[in-house]
Amino acid sequence: METSMSEVANEGTGKLYVVGLGPGGAEDMSGRARKAIEACDLVAGYTVYIDLLHDEFPEKEILTTPMRKEVDRCRKALEAAAGGRSVAMVCSGDPGVYGMAGLIFELASEYPPVDIEVIPGVSASTGGAAVLGAPLMHDWCTISLSDLLTPWEKIEQRLTAAAQADFVISLYNPSSHKRPDYLQRACDILLAAGKDPDTVCGTVRNIGREGEEANIMTLAKLRDTKVDMFTCVYIGNSQTQEIDGHMVTPRGYLQRED
Amino acid sequence: METSMSEVANEGTGKLYVVGLGPGGAEDMSGRARKAIEACDLVAGYTVYIDLLHDEFPEKEILTTPMRKEVDRCRKALEAAAGGRSVAMVCSGDPGVYGMAGLIFELASEYPPVDIEVIPGVSASTGGAAVLGAPLMHDWCTISLSDLLTPWEKIEQRLTAAAQADFVISLYNPSSHKRPDYLQRACDILLAAGKDPDTVCGTVRNIGREGEEANIMTLAKLRDTKVDMFTCVYIGNSQTQEIDGHMVTPRGYLQRED
Repeated sequence: METSMSEVANEGTGKLYVVGLGPGGAEDMSGRARKAIEACDLVAGYTVYIDLLHDEFPEKEILTTPMRKEVDRCRKALEAAAGGRSVAMVCSGDPGVYGMAGLIFELASEYPPVDIEVIPGVSASTGGAAVLGAPLMHDWCTISLSDLLTPWEKIEQRLTAAAQADFVISLYNPSSHKRPDYLQRACDILLAAGKDPDTVCGTVRNIGREGEEANIMTLAKLRDTKVDMFTCVYIGNSQTQEIDGHMVTPRGYLQRED
Repeated sequence: METSMSEVANEGTGKLYVVGLGPGGAEDMSGRARKAIEACDLVAGYTVYIDLLHDEFPEKEILTTPMRKEVDRCRKALEAAAGGRSVAMVCSGDPGVYGMAGLIFELASEYPPVDIEVIPGVSASTGGAAVLGAPLMHDWCTISLSDLLTPWEKIEQRLTAAAQADFVISLYNPSSHKRPDYLQRACDILLAAGKDPDTVCGTVRNIGREGEEANIMTLAKLRDTKVDMFTCVYIGNSQTQEIDGHMVTPRGYLQRED
């Protein structure tokens, strides 16, 4: 596979891998992700994730841009690839879940042809779920509470729909300095939509990283809990249980047996 | 990490890893998943996925059970671990998304204490999304169309809610021999709930495996398309586009810039 990657890069058309690193450290990366980065001569990404790569791939040229500069970062990666280089744009978790994959495709038409390949990673949702136990075993949804790019009314509508249809919910971006009360607002919307205050919920901070911390609590307790932007929040469905310190949503196998 | 795994196993308490293999071949596996399997002396799983392991880990004792025997499979893995062995229960994709992780936790209380660790994998949802482009860039949900364990009315309610709240939708188990028309029924429910017939949709068959095949089409066309149980189906939100042969849901970065 590495050989064919190099061949593509040497043909003159650039190659751009959009690579998911998984939620935590280097061990969460897939073999495909590692090979793609190894096949590239330039690695681009958000400053925080790049430290991991310095340790794993010390010989690579690295291009970093800070948070909120997503468009610049993607343009620089596309420019380099359009110029014939092999570039890996790396993202934490999965690049197709609130990552850079979409923006790369949206911008690509402005550049000479580039061969774009998305390499998936373990998403923060399922990575954090594994720390808690098995909360996402039945139909579930992800909702980002960030209203930087999405009107709050749309977020509110999705929270209400998810509660009424009894989805398990995974929340991204549950809080930030400018939005310290967003998780509380979200919990109030879920409660107003009919969720039981005793619904089993969980939080995971620093998934797969130093200082990883998981907690299980009721929805009523979650409403009054402060979390930061490095936390994923999980809200169970009506069947979710706490079993021996784990958050578990039954799929229904045992119920079928009975 | 491998050392501490062996230490745990040698203490007498068994260890049970519930391991996600990712959606495709061995390269989709994470470093953590590979190390966990290497640290075990027994690997359990559904027959189909086990072939992959025979090639990668030829020296392992392997315990297979056929489809629909999920409870037996989990009991055998728990029994072996409770007897002091190190066991890896492997699942395709992520073990916490329609996999075996939940059932393991549900059954564990019936056995002597076992140290259970879930190792996440790239889910079929995000693995298939990477093949199509970037369909899951905004809030999304997964819904299984299998009514073996879930009443059809609940599935119908979730489809309607997902359509009305404009989630991107990833469908698991869209069809089977006994349910050849379920995808058509699901599409009709989405259309009745207000989805535009021109909504951009995609299908991916055999994600990351021999014979991988991806197609992009409208929701109206999807309604009349036959898919099999090895296919993941994606239904866009109101903003999803086809860009140069890729299915892409904008997150909103460029709209913010304008």
